[in-house]
Amino acid sequence: MPSADPTALRIRLGDLAAELGGTLEGDPEREITGVAAIPDAGPGDLTFLADRRYEEAAERTQAGAILTAGNHRAFPCPTIAVRDPLQAFLAIAARYHPPVTPTPGVHPSAVLGPGVELGVGVAIGAHAVLEAGARVGDRSIVGPLVWLGRSARLGADCRLYPGAVVREECVLGDRVIVQPGAVIGADGFGFHMAGGVHEKVPQLGRVVIEDDVEIGACCTIDRGTIGETRIGRGTKFDNLVHIGHNVRIGEHSLVVAQVGVGGSTTIGRQVVIAGQVGIVGHLEIGDGVQIGAGAGVMTSIPAGSRMWGSPALPFGDAKRVFAATRRTPEMLKEIAALKRQLEELSARLTALAAGEPAASAADREPQRKP
Amino acid sequence: MPSADPTALRIRLGDLAAELGGTLEGDPEREITGVAAIPDAGPGDLTFLADRRYEEAAERTQAGAILTAGNHRAFPCPTIAVRDPLQAFLAIAARYHPPVTPTPGVHPSAVLGPGVELGVGVAIGAHAVLEAGARVGDRSIVGPLVWLGRSARLGADCRLYPGAVVREECVLGDRVIVQPGAVIGADGFGFHMAGGVHEKVPQLGRVVIEDDVEIGACCTIDRGTIGETRIGRGTKFDNLVHIGHNVRIGEHSLVVAQVGVGGSTTIGRQVVIAGQVGIVGHLEIGDGVQIGAGAGVMTSIPAGSRMWGSPALPFGDAKRVFAATRRTPEMLKEIAALKRQLEELSARLTALAAGEPAASAADREPQRKP
Amino acid sequence: MPSADPTALRIRLGDLAAELGGTLEGDPEREITGVAAIPDAGPGDLTFLADRRYEEAAERTQAGAILTAGNHRAFPCPTIAVRDPLQAFLAIAARYHPPVTPTPGVHPSAVLGPGVELGVGVAIGAHAVLEAGARVGDRSIVGPLVWLGRSARLGADCRLYPGAVVREECVLGDRVIVQPGAVIGADGFGFHMAGGVHEKVPQLGRVVIEDDVEIGACCTIDRGTIGETRIGRGTKFDNLVHIGHNVRIGEHSLVVAQVGVGGSTTIGRQVVIAGQVGIVGHLEIGDGVQIGAGAGVMTSIPAGSRMWGSPALPFGDAKRVFAATRRTPEMLKEIAALKRQLEELSARLTALAAGEPAASAADREPQRKP
Repeated sequence: MPSADPTALRIRLGDLAAELGGTLEGDPEREITGVAAIPDAGPGDLTFLADRRYEEAAERTQAGAILTAGNHRAFPCPTIAVRDPLQAFLAIAARYHPPVTPTPGVHPSAVLGPGVELGVGVAIGAHAVLEAGARVGDRSIVGPLVWLGRSARLGADCRLYPGAVVREECVLGDRVIVQPGAVIGADGFGFHMAGGVHEKVPQLGRVVIEDDVEIGACCTIDRGTIGETRIGRGTKFDNLVHIGHNVRIGEHSLVVAQVGVGGSTTIGRQVVIAGQVGIVGHLEIGDGVQIGAGAGVMTSIPAGSRMWGSPALPFGDAKRVFAATRRTPEMLKEIAALKRQLEELSARLTALAAGEPAASAADREPQRKP
Repeated sequence: MPSADPTALRIRLGDLAAELGGTLEGDPEREITGVAAIPDAGPGDLTFLADRRYEEAAERTQAGAILTAGNHRAFPCPTIAVRDPLQAFLAIAARYHPPVTPTPGVHPSAVLGPGVELGVGVAIGAHAVLEAGARVGDRSIVGPLVWLGRSARLGADCRLYPGAVVREECVLGDRVIVQPGAVIGADGFGFHMAGGVHEKVPQLGRVVIEDDVEIGACCTIDRGTIGETRIGRGTKFDNLVHIGHNVRIGEHSLVVAQVGVGGSTTIGRQVVIAGQVGIVGHLEIGDGVQIGAGAGVMTSIPAGSRMWGSPALPFGDAKRVFAATRRTPEMLKEIAALKRQLEELSARLTALAAGEPAASAADREPQRKP
Repeated sequence: MPSADPTALRIRLGDLAAELGGTLEGDPEREITGVAAIPDAGPGDLTFLADRRYEEAAERTQAGAILTAGNHRAFPCPTIAVRDPLQAFLAIAARYHPPVTPTPGVHPSAVLGPGVELGVGVAIGAHAVLEAGARVGDRSIVGPLVWLGRSARLGADCRLYPGAVVREECVLGDRVIVQPGAVIGADGFGFHMAGGVHEKVPQLGRVVIEDDVEIGACCTIDRGTIGETRIGRGTKFDNLVHIGHNVRIGEHSLVVAQVGVGGSTTIGRQVVIAGQVGIVGHLEIGDGVQIGAGAGVMTSIPAGSRMWGSPALPFGDAKRVFAATRRTPEMLKEIAALKRQLEELSARLTALAAGEPAASAADREPQRKP
């Protein structure tokens, strides 16, 4: 609904269309006061249609105007035809929802150890704790209640949300985003059995996160036992992902929520790992591999493969196996029927060989009739 | 064991029975000084039997007295028969373990931004951080080390435990409980591929949590990309649950630990989702649906269905498939045997048609003997 | 690479071999300035070979020296033969990476409630919060931003990393390690249905963690509803593990990442539970049980069993079932072929019984030719 706040941002549809280089059908004087998805949009809101699944909902929208790719369905509101409705929408949405960025400076309640180095324009939030020798690059934002361990290092333009933890010696590149509650550099799970007792193997390595990585909320990325756990440039993690010690993930990969990767596994670049996948340790997952939701990966995967299922199979095989497995109850019945029929046939054959008349019910019927 | 602390609460069994409206068998002067489950209970403790699985253990209990539903098994201690032993027990237990609630007020170490609004009787814990414009309703408890983002809003009688994070603009209703470490309103997992690189889609929406919801420890509930992620009134989450952007869950649903729900999926009311279930994005899960532990849901589910397995099937089908699948090694052998028998039968038939004597081993044996 | 820092630790290979009681092949004057795993090691680094999988990589290492078990492969650098290369390596590695331990004392920004008791040599980090009556044993380290609830109790030589939460009344033994973000003592998931609404069952118990336990990052261990959730001495948890209310785990067990255990399940000693396993509530898992990755455990397991699969089966059965299940698409085809062949055979038999010539294609072909 149109905001009652007189200072709220109001944009004329005519101006919107011009700004987006789009074609308006409808009243150019109408004003937009907000943005919303199709089902939530009210008469003051701009919405957008970028996915055919939402076409029907779009025809019933309450929105003030809709961005479309120029198809000719009947919408109940003005339309602006643009090449990429999602991109256009996000550009306008960002004007109504400017990002919340803190003013640079160190909050007086933050605690900075000796030798902490802060770049230009850095913001350190309330109750953040930076241990001795931690370094934060230019314009990076260390949120409230964040902890940076001794000699932890952040590049430029990073953003660490509240409650994130980066343990000692770990290194983050430039433009790394860490969502709340993520833990980078906890001890890897390393023990050796000695006299019936699990003795801790000291975890002496670190985590290196390259530029442009995003780490989701409550992810846990363990430090190397020796050497590094490394997340490649541009790779993005959803929430609650677990990465074991000494895992290496290549560039521009996607790791969806609740994935777990065992220690020392190497994963290539542009890999896509869907939600809740588990990958055991000491494997090699090649470049461009795609792994379907819930898969359990027990063996290395060559580059370019698509895998699914648990234990994981090539995608086409997995689909066939899932489809066939659903028919196992029916298969049991068919096997039982085949056994019966085979015994019957064998009996008929034995009878025939002994010179008796054919014994099958089907055979017998016509013989009785005459 | 009876507490050595002379100030500890002591209740006579006669008084207990009267208070609960139950029927005592045993000494009314005996005193109860604590409560405990059957295996832990000592001579000063009240315990209870509400589940037949524990009947045998109850007959060997060391407890000072036991609450039962009035069955006539032989217990080694006084009994109080009541209609609902669990409810009665919890009522007494709450007297021995009164909830820990902080004194209202703002701890001097808490940091409150400009424009923060606090209702009557609010408690703000040590080192909590409330950003500009955050609002907290009457009698709500914001625990130590909690972070509320800019303009986040809590209703009345909420309780946020230490380390919980509520990002900017998110809204919690009345009587919402958030266990430690939960993250509400992190960015959704939204990227679009541009030139081989995943570009972040700004996450401009929010999370709305309705009245009487409980969120477990270390859950992550992402904000809407545009619009809302919404958790319906009375819905309860166990720990480590992941909810993607723009998910909507109806009222009075239960979501058990480590469930993951992909973005834009809609879930109905009074749904029960067991532990470690994964539900992919963009689905519709109807009202009253029940999903068994570990299921992988890849397709929408009509209201009232029970589902299980991965990929999920109707519950009865899933059970039959699981049972039949366990017999696949046997099925392989049976199929191989059928093939052999069929070949043998075919050979016998061919031989018979050619005028030769029947060729089966079974047939041959008697023929050789004479 | 050799460090440019003149104060960095430099050890002669001759001294290293003497210290380790090993046999050096190579120049005893060569100096080691760091440690690294095989693929990361540079000319100043000591590395080690303890796993045959890395033999080939070891033959191409850039390391300054390698610890081996005395086999005779050709390494491109000096070798020191020792009985246990990993142990020897870790001993040296610990000298190059001494553990980061804070100076004892209470950071001025920490908040301690009334009646908090601190042992000798305790370190309390910045912004830590210890509620009334919390007790911390000698030499324990409570990291920055940690929260200890009312009357929570830590033994001696514990280490709680930043962001860990221990709720009221919970008890940790000696030498317990808690990684960042772990939550001990959150409310269990207990509700009873009353008039279509889930009413909270008060969670009145506690968590007891015995000596020498390690809890991974972002684990959630719920308190008992009544009585205890208990983790036995020497048991180790990886990250993101969920433990429901009133679970009991025995001594010296291992629980790998993302495992979930439902309420009131009892698990024995020296049990190994691999990653992403789910165990439903109210089960008994015997001593020495091993459960394979991703398994779904729905029934109790006798001591000493190895289980795998979902629902879990004895390990050998599960392997056979997995192998056979992969052949279900082939089985479907074979069953269809058997049905066709059986029908054909039946038809041939019927024809033969009726005095007609044999009807099989195989039989007919030779008959037609002459």
